[in-house]
Amino acid sequence: MADIHQTSFDVSFKHCDPAGIVFYPRFTEMLNDVVEHWFKYGLGCDFAALHGSRGLAIPTVRLEIDFKRPAFLGDTLVASLSVLHVGTSSTRLRILFLSKDGAENLEAQLTIVFVGMGNKRPLEIPADLRIGIERFVSPLNAVND
Amino acid sequence: MADIHQTSFDVSFKHCDPAGIVFYPRFTEMLNDVVEHWFKYGLGCDFAALHGSRGLAIPTVRLEIDFKRPAFLGDTLVASLSVLHVGTSSTRLRILFLSKDGAENLEAQLTIVFVGMGNKRPLEIPADLRIGIERFVSPLNAVND
Amino acid sequence: MADIHQTSFDVSFKHCDPAGIVFYPRFTEMLNDVVEHWFKYGLGCDFAALHGSRGLAIPTVRLEIDFKRPAFLGDTLVASLSVLHVGTSSTRLRILFLSKDGAENLEAQLTIVFVGMGNKRPLEIPADLRIGIERFVSPLNAVND
Amino acid sequence: MADIHQTSFDVSFKHCDPAGIVFYPRFTEMLNDVVEHWFKYGLGCDFAALHGSRGLAIPTVRLEIDFKRPAFLGDTLVASLSVLHVGTSSTRLRILFLSKDGAENLEAQLTIVFVGMGNKRPLEIPADLRIGIERFVSPLNAVND
Repeated sequence: MADIHQTSFDVSFKHCDPAGIVFYPRFTEMLNDVVEHWFKYGLGCDFAALHGSRGLAIPTVRLEIDFKRPAFLGDTLVASLSVLHVGTSSTRLRILFLSKDGAENLEAQLTIVFVGMGNKRPLEIPADLRIGIERFVSPLNAVND
Repeated sequence: MADIHQTSFDVSFKHCDPAGIVFYPRFTEMLNDVVEHWFKYGLGCDFAALHGSRGLAIPTVRLEIDFKRPAFLGDTLVASLSVLHVGTSSTRLRILFLSKDGAENLEAQLTIVFVGMGNKRPLEIPADLRIGIERFVSPLNAVND
Repeated sequence: MADIHQTSFDVSFKHCDPAGIVFYPRFTEMLNDVVEHWFKYGLGCDFAALHGSRGLAIPTVRLEIDFKRPAFLGDTLVASLSVLHVGTSSTRLRILFLSKDGAENLEAQLTIVFVGMGNKRPLEIPADLRIGIERFVSPLNAVND
Repeated sequence: MADIHQTSFDVSFKHCDPAGIVFYPRFTEMLNDVVEHWFKYGLGCDFAALHGSRGLAIPTVRLEIDFKRPAFLGDTLVASLSVLHVGTSSTRLRILFLSKDGAENLEAQLTIVFVGMGNKRPLEIPADLRIGIERFVSPLNAVND
């Protein structure tokens, strides 16, 4: 069974727009938070170490989001991250945001690429991170891929 | 010939991350700025009027971005918006960000839906806005659509 | 003894600038988060209820911050809120951010005013909130005030 | 006569909160934009050069803001920057935001310190920048200082 990495968000005042719902660029900021949280707690490599001592960056090269239901001030959202595909230097992630009642607020797919911090060129995913990432590859996802 | 709506951005300190490049959630904020600028100057309906006297909101229901080249502090980016498709209550937009040398930084597609501010339910695009939006539909886009 | 309301932050990628430290507007966003957290857990009135059913807003009318030490990606900061003064419709807060080693990152004072959501005019702090707020007034603060 | 550096902002959707007014952390982001604009156009040293080839950073060490009138979606604000004091390594700035009708939205004072990008230690303001900065010192401000 593949692992799924979960984290949660309380929708706060800073996230909301004059229409009273989460401003969608704030959702993309939360997506980045999910990936950062996964690196720290799911892969054991926090962003300070990744960008610091390891000299890596992981720019997002493709992002797709289906916004299914607006989220409101005070809502609690649960984010679930799984891995759709691991390539030589890139990884495709799927992130769902669900409300407490189980309804989906959004479904996102992100492709991140491992690059060197200096020259920003793609490089092979380091072996220890690859092992960690592969734990989150869902066989089901692979079928749908 | 279809119209293209252009606006530009100076990449400033607030946009950039510790890797020295634009943080991608800031790009999505710029995408929202492009749409807002288009409504004001391209369609003649600014967001204060749209969300105020007209009682409409235009949530983004789908977003796709290909990030092609990072942008750096001090870069000037030119955004070009055209319309890919106009439905009953939704509109699909294409937005390109180009650097001064002509290279593409990103290509995005956004689908916005016209809803009532109160009940958040889709409604027909108002006639005056539809006429404006249709000026930006590219025949070429239609072929590629 | 007066209560002190505490909450904590992990400095994440979104907070940091190209100089590798927290961008100060992000600190002001955290200050807003502290006040929001205090309303919810310290005063028992979350922002959704405050701005919704109670029809109130609490704009900040004065803000003072001394930035004492930069914070870096990966740092954990503990915020401590106490009340310096409670007026008829305004409240002055003091918020400290401390690092794990006990050093102060910043000291802020904020004055918030209770206004009606509609006309934005100041009104008396509702009695139940006043009782809650007064629990956080430090006698020591009163002396320094 | 001292120079005053002016720039303007259109209050856009991204700046506004569920109460329909500018969220104050967004005002602090605008203050940073004013300083960045002043460095580029008033002092002839943009932030890419400052943080890049010159190896400097200018953290804000003290910030004071009086928020005098809320700003709404669609408002145009004019920011005016003048210099209150130039020290060995620090500079104190005064920034006003005015609406079209001449009313003040906010008055801010910021103290920035010139530091080396590497060790983050204060250093003497470089001579060319000092000459530029001094052009913006108001004699009136000096009296009030």
